[in-house]
Amino acid sequence: MELKNVIEERLIQPFINATVKVLETMAFTHVLPGRPYLKNEEVAKGDLSGVIGMTGEDKYGTMSVSFSKKAILGVVSNMFSESKTQIDGEIKDAVGEIANMISGQARQEMEQQMGVSINAAIPTVISGTDHSIRHITDYPIAAVTFTIQKGEFSIGNGEEFTIEICLEDN
Amino acid sequence: MELKNVIEERLIQPFINATVKVLETMAFTHVLPGRPYLKNEEVAKGDLSGVIGMTGEDKYGTMSVSFSKKAILGVVSNMFSESKTQIDGEIKDAVGEIANMISGQARQEMEQQMGVSINAAIPTVISGTDHSIRHITDYPIAAVTFTIQKGEFSIGNGEEFTIEICLEDN
Repeated sequence: MELKNVIEERLIQPFINATVKVLETMAFTHVLPGRPYLKNEEVAKGDLSGVIGMTGEDKYGTMSVSFSKKAILGVVSNMFSESKTQIDGEIKDAVGEIANMISGQARQEMEQQMGVSINAAIPTVISGTDHSIRHITDYPIAAVTFTIQKGEFSIGNGEEFTIEICLEDN
Repeated sequence: MELKNVIEERLIQPFINATVKVLETMAFTHVLPGRPYLKNEEVAKGDLSGVIGMTGEDKYGTMSVSFSKKAILGVVSNMFSESKTQIDGEIKDAVGEIANMISGQARQEMEQQMGVSINAAIPTVISGTDHSIRHITDYPIAAVTFTIQKGEFSIGNGEEFTIEICLEDN
């Protein structure tokens, strides 16, 4: 199933670019994006997720990013240059900030390069072992899995995390 | 700490009214709202939550509704007039639809009575035993706990569920 047949790939690329850049600049973590795929029911599970709603004149939707405990501990250790071994409020806030910044940079790219203007809602962070995320839409949901390549702290190396994007036309 | 000192109570009331009405008309379930309170860190936990982002010209924010397993099984049993004993896709979709309808009716009331126009994003449903929800905002977060009074199926009677609302000014 080719993503481009059913969802506008040009709308997904800004989120991929933003994720790579945000993890690099904010958390000094190199991540490698996989190919975008269509999300079947509840593929993405995680221990911590950030969810952020978006609305605009032409499009509205929601983006989420889901981390395993190990992946986010790695990312936040790199971010603060301090080994983190437990999920605490600081880590939950970081997940919200990562979701916020990915959404912000992706929306900026969409605006600059496609003239698509979208506003963001307040991000929400969900924590709970092995929860699953389901976006309620009849439109296709795109997902991209990233592999953490390298950070200062090795705890997250090789771990994966996933972003999901759904956008509907107004 | 009085809610009205720190958050506009008039912006919370539409969500309370909408919740009572949506549960009544959509799920034939009488629910009794408690007094709105300020949410401290992660008061609301749940097994199933619906989250919906909202943005508008003056305000943007996010609303969530969190159910225990027993509460949502009660609500959905009443909704479909059929005893539900397990969390399945139908129940997750129902949580998204409930979040969507509460947000829709509350936004309609805000528009009609206050001229505040807000759009909604795509709702997201989180399932996972005893997860917690954290909205990433410096603004106060209002919460209201509802008690399920009576439905056709007694499984949810006496159970509580909670809505949370945060709104920031643009």
